[in-house]
Amino acid sequence: MATQRNLDETTITDAVVDQFAGTPDPRLKHIMTSLVRHLHDFAREVNLTEDEWFQGIDFLTRTGHTCSDTRQEFILLSDALGLSQLVVAQNHKRAPAATEQTVFGPFHIEGATPQPDGANIAESMPGDPLFVTAQVTGIDGTPIVGATVDVWHADAEGFYDLQDPNWSRDEMRLRAVFQTNTDGRFSFRTIQPSAYPIPTDGPVGEMLQATNRSAMRPAHVHFRVSAPSYDTLITHIFVAGDRWLESDAVFGVRSSCIADFIRREANETAPDGSKPPQPFYTLDYTFRLQPI
Amino acid sequence: MATQRNLDETTITDAVVDQFAGTPDPRLKHIMTSLVRHLHDFAREVNLTEDEWFQGIDFLTRTGHTCSDTRQEFILLSDALGLSQLVVAQNHKRAPAATEQTVFGPFHIEGATPQPDGANIAESMPGDPLFVTAQVTGIDGTPIVGATVDVWHADAEGFYDLQDPNWSRDEMRLRAVFQTNTDGRFSFRTIQPSAYPIPTDGPVGEMLQATNRSAMRPAHVHFRVSAPSYDTLITHIFVAGDRWLESDAVFGVRSSCIADFIRREANETAPDGSKPPQPFYTLDYTFRLQPI
Repeated sequence: MATQRNLDETTITDAVVDQFAGTPDPRLKHIMTSLVRHLHDFAREVNLTEDEWFQGIDFLTRTGHTCSDTRQEFILLSDALGLSQLVVAQNHKRAPAATEQTVFGPFHIEGATPQPDGANIAESMPGDPLFVTAQVTGIDGTPIVGATVDVWHADAEGFYDLQDPNWSRDEMRLRAVFQTNTDGRFSFRTIQPSAYPIPTDGPVGEMLQATNRSAMRPAHVHFRVSAPSYDTLITHIFVAGDRWLESDAVFGVRSSCIADFIRREANETAPDGSKPPQPFYTLDYTFRLQPI
Repeated sequence: MATQRNLDETTITDAVVDQFAGTPDPRLKHIMTSLVRHLHDFAREVNLTEDEWFQGIDFLTRTGHTCSDTRQEFILLSDALGLSQLVVAQNHKRAPAATEQTVFGPFHIEGATPQPDGANIAESMPGDPLFVTAQVTGIDGTPIVGATVDVWHADAEGFYDLQDPNWSRDEMRLRAVFQTNTDGRFSFRTIQPSAYPIPTDGPVGEMLQATNRSAMRPAHVHFRVSAPSYDTLITHIFVAGDRWLESDAVFGVRSSCIADFIRREANETAPDGSKPPQPFYTLDYTFRLQPI
């Protein structure tokens, strides 16, 4: 047992670890022990001052106060520090043929409305039409029937519905849940997403500004694809050619998740057979799920 | 420049550090770089799962939501993880003759009422009377005249005034500010403090319970002593013999800050010349300040 008195910046670490020695759950004990050692190593390595410590306390407090039912500033902080993508990567080792996982992000909502195949999930919203056709398969290409596909994305100005201060939960926009058909396929119509900054009006935005970092994320559509016997796939499909693909503020870009959002001229035939009177985009993508 | 695409749990660290490379303030750049490396090392070392990551996000969010004008749960967390005492220790190297620094804690309030020498700061509060006589000197014993001494402590049940949900700022209890006299001395009357648990009704309490840790702190009185040309001393004086001196929940005990709170019988003569009709305690202590 390490002494618990007269602790200096070196001896205190073993003293704190000793206080966690009686943790009943061995996993929690392992995590707390490692957390304390790394937290203390950090504070010693930079020789943290009391003013800096207090700035950290204040930053965390304001980050907590920024969190609400519709905003998760701690997830945003984790994303911007690369922790989210690190955790995703180490928990989803994938066969090379499988579609890769990326960060979940803070903007998903459970309980979006189920929609029939081909639905327009951007009814009356401004933006260039986007027609998405997609298939869900195993890594060998076998279609997966009845997979559940959650879709969500930002609007043409880069905002999610829940970022609107007047938004209420019964007015979901640019969100839907689809089921794959007997060919493992689903399709929908929406609007072309745009690149956007992560929210910069809170503590995470302050951090990005103070460190001269870009807040931009390349344009993307979020997908969560789940089916029995497969590892649920949470990913984005990024727009090929986006200027922010090499500097995503949350480190989520994977080459296998970049796809061509092909621009079509007005009056060309869209995948649903219509001939939109304005230019539009098409995306065709195959999600390959990793078996469990 | 590290690649910013297809990052795995190893390559992501350099990618994130690279994004902080343009930080204008070199000190902030150093801190963020070290923070990212240690945070990532922790997540890799324990192979943090997504569920555990989310439990961490939820814990931090609830810790933030527990913070208010009168409660600082992040300081409490820092205290309970030994970070606060580590930072205090590495910022206040003291000559052996100087009184040692310990944690500030979350219960201080700026702006307590100045009181004349000898004041009773526990008027009408239940508890055993305590008479404090003290001197403030340099490390060579020279009295320091006109030092400002902030005093605060918990009541006989272990609670600070601001922990009372009905408390308002104009009803400060067991707090005062004194000035040392021409001998460098000050004195006051209060009640004997008792050992107490740090607040256990929030996330920090959950952590202590889940890890089977004691929430108890040994009985103490807080002091902040400041004078021109001396390093401000923030410390506690602990009650000798307290059963929690070897397991302080916030790792703040220093042998040089343990003092005899001597029990006296009813009708003995107190330091102020009175003869209290009930048993009482006396404390005499010399604070030795480190020159800047």
